[in-house]
Amino acid sequence: MRIALLGYGTVGTSFHRLINAKKNLLKEKYGVVPQLIAICDRSGCMINEEGIPYETAYKTKTKFGRLSEEDNGMHPLDVIRELSLDLMVETTTANFKTGEPALSHIFESMKRGIHVITTNKAPLALHMPALLEEASLNGVEFLYSGTVGGGTPFISFGEKVLRGNSLKEIKGILNGTTNYILTRIIDSGLEMNEALSEAQKLGIAEADPTLDLNGFDSAAKLVILMNHLLGKRVTISDIKISGINENLPKCESGQTVKLIASSSPEPKVSMEVIKRGSPMDVGSTYNVIEFNVEELDKIYVTGRGAGGQETAASIIRDVVELKEKLMQKSYQIY
Amino acid sequence: MRIALLGYGTVGTSFHRLINAKKNLLKEKYGVVPQLIAICDRSGCMINEEGIPYETAYKTKTKFGRLSEEDNGMHPLDVIRELSLDLMVETTTANFKTGEPALSHIFESMKRGIHVITTNKAPLALHMPALLEEASLNGVEFLYSGTVGGGTPFISFGEKVLRGNSLKEIKGILNGTTNYILTRIIDSGLEMNEALSEAQKLGIAEADPTLDLNGFDSAAKLVILMNHLLGKRVTISDIKISGINENLPKCESGQTVKLIASSSPEPKVSMEVIKRGSPMDVGSTYNVIEFNVEELDKIYVTGRGAGGQETAASIIRDVVELKEKLMQKSYQIY
Repeated sequence: MRIALLGYGTVGTSFHRLINAKKNLLKEKYGVVPQLIAICDRSGCMINEEGIPYETAYKTKTKFGRLSEEDNGMHPLDVIRELSLDLMVETTTANFKTGEPALSHIFESMKRGIHVITTNKAPLALHMPALLEEASLNGVEFLYSGTVGGGTPFISFGEKVLRGNSLKEIKGILNGTTNYILTRIIDSGLEMNEALSEAQKLGIAEADPTLDLNGFDSAAKLVILMNHLLGKRVTISDIKISGINENLPKCESGQTVKLIASSSPEPKVSMEVIKRGSPMDVGSTYNVIEFNVEELDKIYVTGRGAGGQETAASIIRDVVELKEKLMQKSYQIY
Repeated sequence: MRIALLGYGTVGTSFHRLINAKKNLLKEKYGVVPQLIAICDRSGCMINEEGIPYETAYKTKTKFGRLSEEDNGMHPLDVIRELSLDLMVETTTANFKTGEPALSHIFESMKRGIHVITTNKAPLALHMPALLEEASLNGVEFLYSGTVGGGTPFISFGEKVLRGNSLKEIKGILNGTTNYILTRIIDSGLEMNEALSEAQKLGIAEADPTLDLNGFDSAAKLVILMNHLLGKRVTISDIKISGINENLPKCESGQTVKLIASSSPEPKVSMEVIKRGSPMDVGSTYNVIEFNVEELDKIYVTGRGAGGQETAASIIRDVVELKEKLMQKSYQIY
């Protein structure tokens, strides 16, 4: 499997390290032999048709601050156009205004029949219906399990585990940072700005926490879940979004407040009062999704949001998944 | 797919109703055309090579208290031996002393190359390693997702969702009845016998709750999870089992007591003190499993234990799963 990796930050480097470490497991257990032949970041690209060792790429990047000692003239779109690739892995930084550069990387790959795994949720939040259509038109697989709970495989759970049942509704706490802040405000009486700066000190909130606080991160994940699991062709502009702020809704004893994303009756993200001790009452940085399934009772999956390491592990899962989808496809054709 | 259903109590009848109701979905979405040609309970068997309509079986059973008006001389083992079957679905009552009659039904089916789905956990608790070996020897599929959290697909989650990752340890609350009783004792100050009779009135505890209270039900589920997900070839005699009783371990404020089954350091079921507000702190009749995965943080799946309806839905999921396993197998062979 010939792979190009676009983006070489925390997620990209962790993926590179992990896919080297898991080489034997992947081959023996899943029949996957990954070969990373190109890595690009905004500084340029490193290419090696024999496969790029982790040490080489990581050392070059650490030493020169870029992937090639000098600019070799190759850029991500050239890599997609000129190399013979089976898979493009997109791990660049999310840009919720334009979705770029990931959006172009993904469209360009799909047009050339290259399968795509992305951990960048911006292109999905903005254009998921179009991306799904493009993938289907070109007969390529499009996997993105790292975009929602890379550390907790929510998408995979909904897709694989609930098969044969009808999923009616999704509801959840999809952002660990705001959950941490709300928990600290309500349970420990902190002010909003105290809780935020504490979260920043602990590495839970980013230096610019805007997309977490204003509910956009949660809304992007809701878009992905609704498209993927409920078959609703929505984008982020269809979601009614409000984030967290100091005017918490009133809650009585035995209740608490969470930032909840829900698919129905209308898709929205907002602070809601819930019952303490219910399965949705998870604190700290935990995320949780309630799956409302016709034939079953409600089912909850709880786990931490993703750091780079967890998101990288989600790419490995997607690679295995891709391999199996391709095997099933060849069976159907021949 | 030619199916024999053994056991026609709550689970068996719910499965029969459900597979009729889902006929179109199963065919169109999964390419499964199930044909239920034999149903047996302890009174005898009903056989129809064209497929048995739900109304016919249910009415006969309601009217005559048995599946055939008169004894037609057919018994479950005859059905397995004499009909041409693809799948045997085992839903008889659990017997933790001998595992019978399910144990013979399952071995006999496997020997004849018939795939098996069981919701009866007794044969697994007592002889899971031998059953797995017999299935493998005869090249048949053996599915049992309804035995652990039929209402909450724990097994499927562990197997399908965590692939590509290394599962190290399993820990959980695996019995809804005892969880309800402990919750009522600790949170509402009830005595053990008060909580139990309340649970019986609500239909949460059975008339004979022994196997729940003494921890055997939890231990059986732990055996199944350890064999299936951790590859440990254990039976119920390898588990150190204690159930719930009035001598609760001491817990301070901010703590509570749960009946926890855990795979390591030594496999056991016992009451343990846990932190309130942690993801394992689920009340009422909820079950929860903590999956400790090498590459990820801990992941929790929470849901209700199973009633007949949920367990029946788990058989449908297993039927879909069986179909896919068979498709993959034919791909590998040809």
